[in-house]
Amino acid sequence: MALSYEPLSPTSFLDRAAAAHGTRTAVVDGDLRLTYAELRDRCRRLAGGLAALHSGRPVAVLVPNTHVGLEATFAVPWSGAPLVAVNTRLAAGEVAWILEHSRASVLVHDPVFDDLVADALGRMAEPPQAVRVGADYERLITWGEPTAITPDDERALLSINYTSGTTGNPKGVMYHHRGAYLQALAMAGHTGLSPSSVHLWTLPMFHCNGWCFPWAVTAAAGTHVCLPRVEPARIWELVRDHGVTHLNGAPTVLSMIAHAPEAGPVETTVRVATGGAPPSPAILRRMAELGFEVTHLYGLTETFGPAMICDWQSEWNDLDSDAQARMKARQGVANMISCAARVITDDGTDAPADGETTGQIALRGNNVMLGYLRDDQATRDAAPDGWFRTGDIGVMHPDGYVELRDRAKDVIISGGENIASVEVEQAIADHPAVLEVAVIAVPDERWGEVPAAYVTLHEGATVTAEEIVEHVRGRLARFKAPKRVEFGELPKTSTGKVQKYVLRERATQDQGRASADIDSQSSHGIVQS
Amino acid sequence: MALSYEPLSPTSFLDRAAAAHGTRTAVVDGDLRLTYAELRDRCRRLAGGLAALHSGRPVAVLVPNTHVGLEATFAVPWSGAPLVAVNTRLAAGEVAWILEHSRASVLVHDPVFDDLVADALGRMAEPPQAVRVGADYERLITWGEPTAITPDDERALLSINYTSGTTGNPKGVMYHHRGAYLQALAMAGHTGLSPSSVHLWTLPMFHCNGWCFPWAVTAAAGTHVCLPRVEPARIWELVRDHGVTHLNGAPTVLSMIAHAPEAGPVETTVRVATGGAPPSPAILRRMAELGFEVTHLYGLTETFGPAMICDWQSEWNDLDSDAQARMKARQGVANMISCAARVITDDGTDAPADGETTGQIALRGNNVMLGYLRDDQATRDAAPDGWFRTGDIGVMHPDGYVELRDRAKDVIISGGENIASVEVEQAIADHPAVLEVAVIAVPDERWGEVPAAYVTLHEGATVTAEEIVEHVRGRLARFKAPKRVEFGELPKTSTGKVQKYVLRERATQDQGRASADIDSQSSHGIVQS
Repeated sequence: MALSYEPLSPTSFLDRAAAAHGTRTAVVDGDLRLTYAELRDRCRRLAGGLAALHSGRPVAVLVPNTHVGLEATFAVPWSGAPLVAVNTRLAAGEVAWILEHSRASVLVHDPVFDDLVADALGRMAEPPQAVRVGADYERLITWGEPTAITPDDERALLSINYTSGTTGNPKGVMYHHRGAYLQALAMAGHTGLSPSSVHLWTLPMFHCNGWCFPWAVTAAAGTHVCLPRVEPARIWELVRDHGVTHLNGAPTVLSMIAHAPEAGPVETTVRVATGGAPPSPAILRRMAELGFEVTHLYGLTETFGPAMICDWQSEWNDLDSDAQARMKARQGVANMISCAARVITDDGTDAPADGETTGQIALRGNNVMLGYLRDDQATRDAAPDGWFRTGDIGVMHPDGYVELRDRAKDVIISGGENIASVEVEQAIADHPAVLEVAVIAVPDERWGEVPAAYVTLHEGATVTAEEIVEHVRGRLARFKAPKRVEFGELPKTSTGKVQKYVLRERATQDQGRASADIDSQSSHGIVQS
Repeated sequence: MALSYEPLSPTSFLDRAAAAHGTRTAVVDGDLRLTYAELRDRCRRLAGGLAALHSGRPVAVLVPNTHVGLEATFAVPWSGAPLVAVNTRLAAGEVAWILEHSRASVLVHDPVFDDLVADALGRMAEPPQAVRVGADYERLITWGEPTAITPDDERALLSINYTSGTTGNPKGVMYHHRGAYLQALAMAGHTGLSPSSVHLWTLPMFHCNGWCFPWAVTAAAGTHVCLPRVEPARIWELVRDHGVTHLNGAPTVLSMIAHAPEAGPVETTVRVATGGAPPSPAILRRMAELGFEVTHLYGLTETFGPAMICDWQSEWNDLDSDAQARMKARQGVANMISCAARVITDDGTDAPADGETTGQIALRGNNVMLGYLRDDQATRDAAPDGWFRTGDIGVMHPDGYVELRDRAKDVIISGGENIASVEVEQAIADHPAVLEVAVIAVPDERWGEVPAAYVTLHEGATVTAEEIVEHVRGRLARFKAPKRVEFGELPKTSTGKVQKYVLRERATQDQGRASADIDSQSSHGIVQS
């Protein structure tokens, strides 16, 4: 290889951290402590153990935010296979679908998901080999020969991250080493990660591979503090005990933190990156009072997470708090390794920077996926000209900042998770009593948005709202079930298309006097775990 | 081009900064203010203007730290030619040599160097076209068509930075786009640059292209504050007027800042990166009192500047100030984009991490040069196995931190500038009265080190110390002239090799009772300008 050429891979950050900060704490997970030297050693041995099992096919993991999730982000690539970090909130059928589609050879799973895994694997003709965290997993590490395969081609497949499936089945987004490496550097740079940083894992590691923070925190040689379940009391305990300096999460998580009984001002500023939905002025004010500095980011699974950042300009410190909140609610500008974002109007031209003309937000850069796994058509459709179409509608402000105005795709963002309306509609339509159905997002104080279903029954058929919800829960992840079900005719256009905007208006009017509300807390469960 | 592949180039940071922070201040230079949109526009026009002149050959610049130096780092690559940023402290003969060797087509120069340029170009058979900053330069910008050529090959030649020539003539170190891009991200990450950062240009922009900070500060969209001459009073004025948050420089510069009459505590912490020599405990203490946080970096022209960083570990905050200073004086660990540094012993093995066994420090990574311009043999010698040999001798501590013990190359580091002993020796040997000569480094309170010459004259010849110094000044940059000249026999080995260590011991004993000291202040001039 030529002088000075090293293929970029985010796994190299662990080598560097171990060489530079080998004796310092890399991981805090309950009572477990791992130094960077230990973490690297475990990952290399795990890589060796996995290499003996996977025959080059992907390795899937289904784990909460524990040391295992971090180890997998380094060890699976080092074993010579791509990583599939499965969303732990999915139903068994969804998990089985992803394992089938990715052709996963091995599934590393936490014992808390024993039932889910048994159910999922039971649905498969050729299930992957299950490696249960605990004795099985530690045996792999003990027995594995230290292995660290890094591809000569820096655009080789690193991981496959499944979308929420806005138009039916989820799609397998293919990440490459180069993209994750650069995105990790951008995240470290924008959030100011350093060797003194202590990062609390409030963001699921399976979301865009934890927005590349397993690699970013390691690049800076900061400390990872694991958090298997998002419990506010536990968050506050860890923030105070470990001097947390950084955490990420959807506004819902910020809300849980801010309104916990344990909440109180922190000694050192905690830098929070939030995405999935704009943070509200109220939550920004409350977080600021507590000593949390919130940055709003925007991106998608297809862009390795945040391709855009609402980069704060010190001049804005002089604005009043409402104006500051409006500035912060904008999705912002390209991050330091992305190409400038575009807003493309229906006629294919760039929207003028007037803050009014809407168009589709399009992104480009080294932090765009290789494509969708085994779906070339979808890949071409997503980026017909090299610019990835986000499906989100926005405007370009005169200062170059982009702001979302609507989502072109019919998505409900609930507690940081994307729910495809169409998927919920299909599950409900599957019920024998249902003639037709439309699902929309309705605002929810706790979750941001929740699904609401409008259902027309077959003549003479009867079914209760509760039965509809139970029916959906049998097919999809619990959080995808509608929190409100209303029966009646659906408003339609002259050509027979359902007018969802009419339903949205009706929902706004109905707010507070819902006909068949379902308790959103109980059905949602531990949404962030 | 494939989806999601963009060739890396540090010029892209200016596009991003202009798109994201177009209306914010990019450059402060005296009364001049440029926004990022204006800076980008000027650079693109300048690129167009230069493209019409350079016929694809390099464009050299000889300017102090002004907006022109910054503009050149973007505009020259965009014009489709490599940049040669010439050290402004060199003598006319040295400047001419570099212009000849690089085959520069154009020389952009500041009026303060009119005499130097006239002298240099007068020595050349085919001098480059001179573009004088002022009307000539502005005309190029006004007339130039906006141009931004970026190479498809991200390892294309970006700039040529000349070494101080430790073994005779300087060598042209070839930088590539990819290396500068990644090094800039590492610098931004390690020093915590953000849109709120205000970077004061105390480091010469021609040193390793300003250690890649023209690109790093722009990547973060911070503000560049120019400083044509390193004058302590002016530094303090700018620090206070503009709320400077970052600056870089050799320990000599820190010393000037710390001991200036204007010195006093700053309101906001100023982050200082220093290199060239380890900062002393006294200067670290003084800087800390003033509110400056010093980080020690280590690297060479061949490694895009700092490939290593003495990454601070928060645990060290508990050490006493002497122990902290010892920690900070170490050269440290690989930066986040470099491979782990090695210390290679004479028998080719890695030195054990015992803090005692010495070996040569070797570096590797994407921030290593392409090679030396038109000197393949020197390139092969420098990196026989892909590991670049720094020529510096060090030890590996048990915690993975490298510490320099000696320089294998016979270099004198004076006020942040490298002086090759051999070069001074050759200049002195050129004097008709001189039979033989040896030049060594002797400690100096102000400059760190200065050259001292030990001279044996031809039988019967006479010459004074002052005449020797004048003779050197006629050939080399003024700061390279010896600050002490001693006459007599040279100590030698049985095989006739000069024993420089004997001279060094003698110099230590002589400290304070020198036989023919030359006033080091006056001969050194404005060493940092």
